[in-house]
Amino acid sequence: MSEDRVTAGVLIIGDEILSGRTQDTNLRDIARYLGVHGVDLAEARTVPDVLEEIVAALDALRTRYDYVITTGGIGPTHDDITADAVAAAFGVELIEHPEILAMMTARWGDELNAARRRMARVPVGGELVKNPVQGPPGFTIGNVFVLAGVPQIMRGMLEDVGPRLKGGAVTVSRTVRVEGSGEGVIAAPLEAVAKAHPDLSLGSYPFFTPEGYGSNLVLRGRDPQALASAVDELLNALRAAGIETVREIEPA
Amino acid sequence: MSEDRVTAGVLIIGDEILSGRTQDTNLRDIARYLGVHGVDLAEARTVPDVLEEIVAALDALRTRYDYVITTGGIGPTHDDITADAVAAAFGVELIEHPEILAMMTARWGDELNAARRRMARVPVGGELVKNPVQGPPGFTIGNVFVLAGVPQIMRGMLEDVGPRLKGGAVTVSRTVRVEGSGEGVIAAPLEAVAKAHPDLSLGSYPFFTPEGYGSNLVLRGRDPQALASAVDELLNALRAAGIETVREIEPA
Repeated sequence: MSEDRVTAGVLIIGDEILSGRTQDTNLRDIARYLGVHGVDLAEARTVPDVLEEIVAALDALRTRYDYVITTGGIGPTHDDITADAVAAAFGVELIEHPEILAMMTARWGDELNAARRRMARVPVGGELVKNPVQGPPGFTIGNVFVLAGVPQIMRGMLEDVGPRLKGGAVTVSRTVRVEGSGEGVIAAPLEAVAKAHPDLSLGSYPFFTPEGYGSNLVLRGRDPQALASAVDELLNALRAAGIETVREIEPA
Repeated sequence: MSEDRVTAGVLIIGDEILSGRTQDTNLRDIARYLGVHGVDLAEARTVPDVLEEIVAALDALRTRYDYVITTGGIGPTHDDITADAVAAAFGVELIEHPEILAMMTARWGDELNAARRRMARVPVGGELVKNPVQGPPGFTIGNVFVLAGVPQIMRGMLEDVGPRLKGGAVTVSRTVRVEGSGEGVIAAPLEAVAKAHPDLSLGSYPFFTPEGYGSNLVLRGRDPQALASAVDELLNALRAAGIETVREIEPA
C-alpha cells in the first residue's frame, strides 16, 4: 500500500468455480472497473464455500490491500455463507438489515420465507451497496465490498462501489436508458462506442419488471467532455440501430 | 490433505489477468481436467509478474495441497519469471535443460537467441512436461507442475500431467487424429460427443506443421467401454460432418 498506489484484492467465493462448472468472468470485469478508477488489482483468490477458507483469505487480503471485493455466496441457500464469513472476520454479529427487510417484504409479502431472509443479513456496522439489477443489495464493511456472484448483478453493484474508492481520481457517470429492447440489439452499437472510447467504462444493466424490460447503459470516466461525446454517439448509434425508446436519465 | 481426498492448488501468473486485459480460461480447464482424474481443486490464486509474489503464493499452495499447477510466465520475455520463482521456492539453481536446448537448436539454428534460450531454463531436479502443441515443454519439480499460459498450449501440456497424478483412479486415453480440417468444423461433432459423455474428458489439440494441419482429439476417462463407444461415435460424427481424413492413432 504505497502512498501513490491504491491497491485491491479480489476474493471469488464458490465451489462452482473450483469444480470447473462455471467460467468466472467477474475477475476481469472488476479488474477493468478498478483500472478505470485508478485502483490496481494486486491479487485474486478463489476459495470454496467453506467458512474457514473464506475468513482466512479475506483476512489475508484485507490486511494487505487498500480494498477487497468479494463475489459470490450471498444468495438464499445454505451454502451461501459469505455474510457469515465477513462477520466472523470482523468479529461482529450478523443482523437482518431493516432496509433490506422492508424491500423484501414489499416484494415478497407472505412469500418472504426463511431462505430469502438470509439475504437480508448484514454484519453490524455494514452499509448497503445498491443493486440496480434485481434482488437484495450487497454490503460493505471496513475496506471490504461484498457483491453478488451472478455477473450481471455483480457489475450493477460495482457502479455503487466506484464512488466510494479513494485514489479513483474519479469519474463522472451518465446513464442512457433503453426501454423495450434487449441486449441482443444493444450490444453492437454499445460495443462500437466502447471501442471508440477506450478510456471510458461502458456497462449494460438489463432490467425486467412487470411494466416492461430494457437496459440501463452506464458510461463512466474521468473526462466529462469525452463522456458527453460518448453519450451523444451512443444515442445516435442506438437510434441508427432502430432502437427508438432511448433517453438519458439521472444516474441510478 | 486427508487420505481419501487428493487436492490441488492452481497458481495463475500474469499481469494481463489482473489488469483485465485477458480473460482467464485456464482455471476452468484445469479444474475440469483434475476432476476427471479424481483430484479436487481446492484453491486458486492469481498473482502479478513479481518474483516475491510468485514465490510466496507457490510456497503457500505447495505446502498445503498435494499438487500445484501454475500457468503463465514461461515465455521468452523479461517478465517471464516463473522458472526463476520456482527455482527460488525450491532453493535450487536454474540450468539450461539439454533436451530443450537440443529441440530449440534443431528448430531455430542460428536464430536461437538469448530470449529463446530463456525458455530452456529448468530448475535442477526438474523433469519435462511434454508440449504437444508448439514451443518448448513445461516442467515439474516436487509437487509443482509448470505449464504455459496460452490456453491451447496449457491444455496440451495437461495431457502429460494427468498420468503423473496419484488418486487419479485413472484413466484411459485414446486419440483420434484429424488431418486437413480445422477446429471450426471439428467443434460441433466433438461437442455433441462430449455432451453425450459427461464422464469423459474430450480435448482438441490443433497442430500446424510444414506437412499440413489438423487436430489431435484426446478422449480420456475411467471406463474403457464408455471410451470405446465415444471413440466410435466421434469417428462417425466427424465423417458425418464431411471430415474424411480421420483415424485413431496411438496416444501422444
